[in-house]
Amino acid sequence: MRRPRILITNDDGVNAPGLRKLIEIMRPLGEVYVVASDRIMSGTGHAITVRTPLRVHELKKEKGYEEYVCDGTPVDCAKLGIEVVIGEKPDLLVSGINHGSNASINVIYSGTMAAVLEGCIDGIPSVGFSLLDYSFKADFSHCNPYVTEIAKKVLEHGLPSGTCLNVNIPAVNGEEINGIKVCRQARARWIGKYDARTDPSRRDYFWLTGHFENQDEGDDTDQFALENNFVSVVPVHTDLTAHHAISELNNWKLNG
Amino acid sequence: MRRPRILITNDDGVNAPGLRKLIEIMRPLGEVYVVASDRIMSGTGHAITVRTPLRVHELKKEKGYEEYVCDGTPVDCAKLGIEVVIGEKPDLLVSGINHGSNASINVIYSGTMAAVLEGCIDGIPSVGFSLLDYSFKADFSHCNPYVTEIAKKVLEHGLPSGTCLNVNIPAVNGEEINGIKVCRQARARWIGKYDARTDPSRRDYFWLTGHFENQDEGDDTDQFALENNFVSVVPVHTDLTAHHAISELNNWKLNG
Repeated sequence: MRRPRILITNDDGVNAPGLRKLIEIMRPLGEVYVVASDRIMSGTGHAITVRTPLRVHELKKEKGYEEYVCDGTPVDCAKLGIEVVIGEKPDLLVSGINHGSNASINVIYSGTMAAVLEGCIDGIPSVGFSLLDYSFKADFSHCNPYVTEIAKKVLEHGLPSGTCLNVNIPAVNGEEINGIKVCRQARARWIGKYDARTDPSRRDYFWLTGHFENQDEGDDTDQFALENNFVSVVPVHTDLTAHHAISELNNWKLNG
Repeated sequence: MRRPRILITNDDGVNAPGLRKLIEIMRPLGEVYVVASDRIMSGTGHAITVRTPLRVHELKKEKGYEEYVCDGTPVDCAKLGIEVVIGEKPDLLVSGINHGSNASINVIYSGTMAAVLEGCIDGIPSVGFSLLDYSFKADFSHCNPYVTEIAKKVLEHGLPSGTCLNVNIPAVNGEEINGIKVCRQARARWIGKYDARTDPSRRDYFWLTGHFENQDEGDDTDQFALENNFVSVVPVHTDLTAHHAISELNNWKLNG
C-alpha cells in the first residue's frame, strides 16, 4: 500500500522550531515533502506572488523525505509544493506549527492558515496547527499526541467538502490539556495603535502595536476552548458570503 | 450638519486610474481622505506590516480633501488612515476601483477586499469596488452611477452588523448593464500552473500562471450576475467558520 503523501509548510520560515516539530510528528505517518519560505512570513495573509518570479532550492532528499526552501509567501509554498515539487495533489497538507495563536480573527491575517486555505481551494485535506506562544523558543513538546490524532483522523476520514481545519494548542504542559474541542471562530479583533517614532535622520515613522479584544461571550468558540485548556479545532471554509445579510440588502432596492 | 468622512484606499497603488475615478465619485459625497500604497499591491491578500516600520507622506491637503501615500499594504493603508490620518473611525471606507475582478474566490487573494475586511473588523461600513478589466487603461466611465448609488445607500442605512460589501462591475458600456444584484460568492478557483524558466545566469525560476474555473452552476452567484451584465453585490463577513461541518467533526470523537 502506498504511504500517504504529506506536504508541510508554515509561515515562520524554514528554520522555525515549530516547523521542525511538525516534520518530526509527520514523518511516521507518510512520505513527507517540506516547502517553506527562506524568511519569516508571519502576518502575510493570503498574499501570493504573481508579479515576480519564484526560486525553489532543494535542501535535503532521502527516502521518504524531501525538503525545499523558496523565496515566496506561505501560499506560494503550498502552490509550488503541489505543482512543482510533488507534481500532484498530496493526501494531506499541514501548516505550522505556528509560533503564536491563529484562533478567532487571527485566521484572517495568518500566513499559516492562508497556506491551508489554498490547499482547501485545491480540494486537498488541509490542517493548520498553531501553539499559543509567539516565542522562537516556544515549548512544543506536548503537541505531538494532538497533532498526530488530528492528522490521522483526517487521513482516515478526509474532511467535509470545501472545509479545512484551524487547530490551536494551548501553551501549557501536556498534562494540563483537557482534550480536543470542535468550535466556531470567536468574534474578536485587534485594537491597533501606531507608535509614532523618529528615525536617526529625523524622519517620522510608525510601528504597529495593539491588543486583542474578544467580543464573543459564547462557550462554543475557539477562544473559550483555549482559555479552558482545550485544543481548539475550527472547520474553516473559503465562502466569505454573509448569507444572513442577503435578504436585508435586497430590501434596499438597489437599481443604479 | 457634518459631512460624512470617507476613507479611500486600493491595492493598485496611489497612481492607479481606478483610485482616481473613485476619488472623483466620492468627493461630492463627503470629506475625503485617501491613503494608498506607493506601489502596486495586487494579490497581497490580508498582509499586514508588523515587523518593519511604516512611512506616511502627505501629497495634498485642501478643504474637504487630503491625500497620503504610504509604503505598506492595503490593510496597512486602511489602519493608518483610521488611526493616524483621520484619528477616528470614518463614516465610510471604500477601496478600489480595482483593476480586475474580485468576484468569487478572488476575494481571498484581493488586497482591495482585505482593506475592506479590515474596516469591517473595525465596525466601519466598508465597500470594495472592482471593474472586470485588469488593464491599467481600463475604462471606468460607466461606473459612476453604480458606485454612487451603493455608497449613498451605505451612508444612509449603514450595513448589517459584521458585514461589508464586495461590489464587482462588468467591463461593458454603461447602457448594457442590466442593474445591480445582491448575490452570494460563487464556488470557483484558480487552476495554478508554474512556467519553469531559466534566467541569464542559467538559474531556474518559476512564474505563476493559471486559469479561472467556475465550479458553481447557481444562478444566485456573483459570477452568474456578472456574466449576465449585472453589477454584483456580495455581503461579506470575517467569520470563516464552516458551521455546517461542526456536527460531522464532532462524530469523529477526537480525544488526543
